Amino acid sequence: MNESERPGVEVVFSPALLPLYNLTGKTAVVIDILRATSSMCVAFDKGIRSIVPVTHVEEALTYRKSGFKTAGERDGQKLEGFDLGNSPFDFIQQELKGSDLVMTTTNGTKAIQLSSNASKIYIGSFLNLEALLDRLRAEVQPVVAVCAGWKEKFNLEDSLFAGALASGLSEAFSTSDDSAIACMTLWDSVKHMLPEYIKKASHAQRFERLGIEKDIDFCLQQSIYNIVPEVKEGVIRI
Amino acid sequence: MNESERPGVEVVFSPALLPLYNLTGKTAVVIDILRATSSMCVAFDKGIRSIVPVTHVEEALTYRKSGFKTAGERDGQKLEGFDLGNSPFDFIQQELKGSDLVMTTTNGTKAIQLSSNASKIYIGSFLNLEALLDRLRAEVQPVVAVCAGWKEKFNLEDSLFAGALASGLSEAFSTSDDSAIACMTLWDSVKHMLPEYIKKASHAQRFERLGIEKDIDFCLQQSIYNIVPEVKEGVIRI
Repeated sequence: MNESERPGVEVVFSPALLPLYNLTGKTAVVIDILRATSSMCVAFDKGIRSIVPVTHVEEALTYRKSGFKTAGERDGQKLEGFDLGNSPFDFIQQELKGSDLVMTTTNGTKAIQLSSNASKIYIGSFLNLEALLDRLRAEVQPVVAVCAGWKEKFNLEDSLFAGALASGLSEAFSTSDDSAIACMTLWDSVKHMLPEYIKKASHAQRFERLGIEKDIDFCLQQSIYNIVPEVKEGVIRI
Repeated sequence: MNESERPGVEVVFSPALLPLYNLTGKTAVVIDILRATSSMCVAFDKGIRSIVPVTHVEEALTYRKSGFKTAGERDGQKLEGFDLGNSPFDFIQQELKGSDLVMTTTNGTKAIQLSSNASKIYIGSFLNLEALLDRLRAEVQPVVAVCAGWKEKFNLEDSLFAGALASGLSEAFSTSDDSAIACMTLWDSVKHMLPEYIKKASHAQRFERLGIEKDIDFCLQQSIYNIVPEVKEGVIRI
């Protein structure tokens, strides 16, 4: 295949930049490594039936009345009265099989909702990287990696995952987008020391304050789940 | 100095992200490597007196009536009827000593105007890197590197320059911002092969079409001018 015939891979560093991208006919991969999309993968591995991502706490509480479990955080901390926070360990410790969950997070939910023009929306994390790559390689559609970022700003962990994704697709896809090229270079430079690199970064500094550095080690494990969560009509299922 | 006492270095990848940053009390360095801020440095080295950056072609034409020389491009191409385009070679070939210039460009002018809340605004390019670093090190103020990008999107050459800038400041400044960390890693990874790396990128692909690849080689020369252009009340001078 010529470079020009290959489907493209683009990387969007922040939901604030999404209006600049045309998602029509493309597959969006939503990325919020620390911690929404990682925790979603844990939940599905544990047998959860569905996750509804919502923006506001009040919406989540409405779902609760219909029997949904509730998960959410603001500024990295669990919301009062919710069943779960945003940490993957909250999800590991709970019985979730057959449950439905409503989830509200600072960055991840927003990225999902702003990706609604895409043909397909998948949930990406290091935990399900290979399964996701297999799916994207099989479907041969243009891919837009949508980084949730931190309060609309660029963050390292989401961009590094985008780099891993673009590198994994580079044989059959066109990765000539400047953001994708930068992410692949970044990924190649630090993939051998990922936890140390992420921990020295500002996001890790935020998390250190909250005493949840172990989340970082967990969320950087690669391809431990063979699942590809997909958002359809506002609901995430596998 | 403790890390927390050092002035910070932040990198903004696109004018579209500037509203997320507080520029008050900080020094903005506006970066449009290919080619606005590089060409501005050439102009000052050639003895130009002032440059007025404007958004619209009509504004530029008004200044022309007052005896200003005109420079500008849209989509990388020289505007019809203007004295100069945006290529550094246009500036090198012209007699500019003592002249005043009005300049309108797609990305660079916008980045300058959106940085107006900063205490100081400097013009950054590889051509004046060391002079700029010396100034910033002497002033010890927080620095925000504002990448002009390409049509509001991230681009490699501006971000790589931001990485060179952050690396050059890292001894006395705090570079814990995720964007600054990413730029420094990117810079360290590719600084030994900068022209090849930039040329394989999408921006270079655009330029190749326009036959001006030599601009890239010119604009990646480091610290050939000992000048620091500064924007004051809408006018750039040294």
